[in-house]
Amino acid sequence: MSSALSLPGGLTINPRLPAVVAFGGGHGLYANLTALRRVTDQLTAVVTVADDGGSSGRLRDELDCLPPGDLRMALAALCGDDESGRTWAEVLQYRFRGTGPLSGHAIGNLLIAGLWERLGDPVAGLDMVASLLGARGRVLPMSSVPLEIEAEVIGLDPMLPDEISSIRGQAQVAKTTGEVRAVRLHPHDPPACPESVEVVLAADWVILGPGSWFTSVIPHLLVPELAAAVSSTPARRLLTLNLEPAGETEGFTAARHIELLAEHAPRLRLDVVLADARFAAEDRHLKSYAASLGAELVVADLAARDGSPRHDPLRLASAYAEIFDS
Amino acid sequence: MSSALSLPGGLTINPRLPAVVAFGGGHGLYANLTALRRVTDQLTAVVTVADDGGSSGRLRDELDCLPPGDLRMALAALCGDDESGRTWAEVLQYRFRGTGPLSGHAIGNLLIAGLWERLGDPVAGLDMVASLLGARGRVLPMSSVPLEIEAEVIGLDPMLPDEISSIRGQAQVAKTTGEVRAVRLHPHDPPACPESVEVVLAADWVILGPGSWFTSVIPHLLVPELAAAVSSTPARRLLTLNLEPAGETEGFTAARHIELLAEHAPRLRLDVVLADARFAAEDRHLKSYAASLGAELVVADLAARDGSPRHDPLRLASAYAEIFDS
Repeated sequence: MSSALSLPGGLTINPRLPAVVAFGGGHGLYANLTALRRVTDQLTAVVTVADDGGSSGRLRDELDCLPPGDLRMALAALCGDDESGRTWAEVLQYRFRGTGPLSGHAIGNLLIAGLWERLGDPVAGLDMVASLLGARGRVLPMSSVPLEIEAEVIGLDPMLPDEISSIRGQAQVAKTTGEVRAVRLHPHDPPACPESVEVVLAADWVILGPGSWFTSVIPHLLVPELAAAVSSTPARRLLTLNLEPAGETEGFTAARHIELLAEHAPRLRLDVVLADARFAAEDRHLKSYAASLGAELVVADLAARDGSPRHDPLRLASAYAEIFDS
Repeated sequence: MSSALSLPGGLTINPRLPAVVAFGGGHGLYANLTALRRVTDQLTAVVTVADDGGSSGRLRDELDCLPPGDLRMALAALCGDDESGRTWAEVLQYRFRGTGPLSGHAIGNLLIAGLWERLGDPVAGLDMVASLLGARGRVLPMSSVPLEIEAEVIGLDPMLPDEISSIRGQAQVAKTTGEVRAVRLHPHDPPACPESVEVVLAADWVILGPGSWFTSVIPHLLVPELAAAVSSTPARRLLTLNLEPAGETEGFTAARHIELLAEHAPRLRLDVVLADARFAAEDRHLKSYAASLGAELVVADLAARDGSPRHDPLRLASAYAEIFDS
């Protein structure tokens, strides 16, 4: 992939931009898509479907549907640049106030769940909302059935620090006070969304992370057909680390984040690991851990300029542009 | 208003089509809009906001908003002719199944109510849904506050046939077994939606009916600013009668329908009364009742060809085209 060619007379030729698939869920994926939409026009998000908390949890309980929340958030991140796209994205993110049966439901969750019930096809419903938003990309679920995450945790009881407990449900896992050692999915062998497998196989780049490591980054690799597609795709594989360890991976080194991926997906090979300069500087093993999966380590300043622990969309976009061009 | 001019060479010049405002609510308005969209490109529906049953009733109870159902149905009637418009209209009309908190809610009701809560402006929310549907016209509420209908009814108790009872709530009024004599609104002096007053004053034609007489046709004339606008507008005023008496007006003659309007709106003057040939034939007083309000009686075959008691959209459109052209 090369950058735009400059010709005499100020003309430029833009070669085809890379087809990028971003795996994730929640706020990490939102931030990633906000960056990626700036560097490609062929973007697909493949999103976790294990959320069981809040509005999404209530909808999957009531309607036996996929949890729509992470999918809605990804769609909002891809909304069109015009006023209509931005207004609809903002409306779909809005949550009902009050204390009644609708309280806390995001408008977009209700719309997506209704489209699914009416159309009987999750992908068709998501494509309709994408069209409403004038979305600059496509959003797909990683599996065609709702999933449950189960975590193996130690340290829940301070008196028994080595005892292993099991916690079920993404909402519970995300807020555990114990240390998560591993996660698995129920059902163990869920069907991948066929369109998600297709886009991985046709991609130029597949990107994992950033995001909550156990509930938004690792789960994709636990869907067998999707893990197989990640292994067999001719695309290059890029892992974007979080800016710092937080929540589920509080206190974990950067290298430990990579190790966890390898433990959950032993066949995983990577081409590039992208890390923020500050997080990378804390861990002298990071480069060798990246190399152990076949990856080159790329270090860049990726954090928001205001010091808040989130990726700066333009810095992240700039890092991606350089990686895609090299 | 004249029809298209045919020029030598097959050219035609279409003069400006008439600006039409259709008052109503529910299925009668839906049928009327389905006809009117064929004969004008300047169409506005002004819709009752007194429904307190079903999905609309639950939403106004929970969110203290206007009842969205009749507005949603009017928007669906005006959906764009392309696949996107028709699909969205069909989706917004779809109701959640099951027995949970969402059961029975039309998707469009939830979307409209959410837009209202987020935007804080009923007209802005309706205009956004109209834009989503590619609607061939605009839909406005008759009042900017939710209303309640109270009916004066006789014959509820067979032992006391002349006793007058009071029934509150549109859902109750619509299914009363008694004979409705009169209706009033609570609050008595509700504010009209300002945009609705404006379109009435700027219209070429204002159309009342068809529809449930006491709950969808008469209420507009009980909103003082709207009744005043109907009186003072330079537009011509057209009343479209129902095909036959049913529901709230079971057993009433055509002339009695006109008389009821006059009783509720003593200042009302009409230019045209449009009646189906079969209903008109049953009532030799109809012409003089129409004339008493200043109206010419126009009689045409308007019923569906399959014999069902609903207006045929093309026959109704054809009758309107002739009336607008004359």
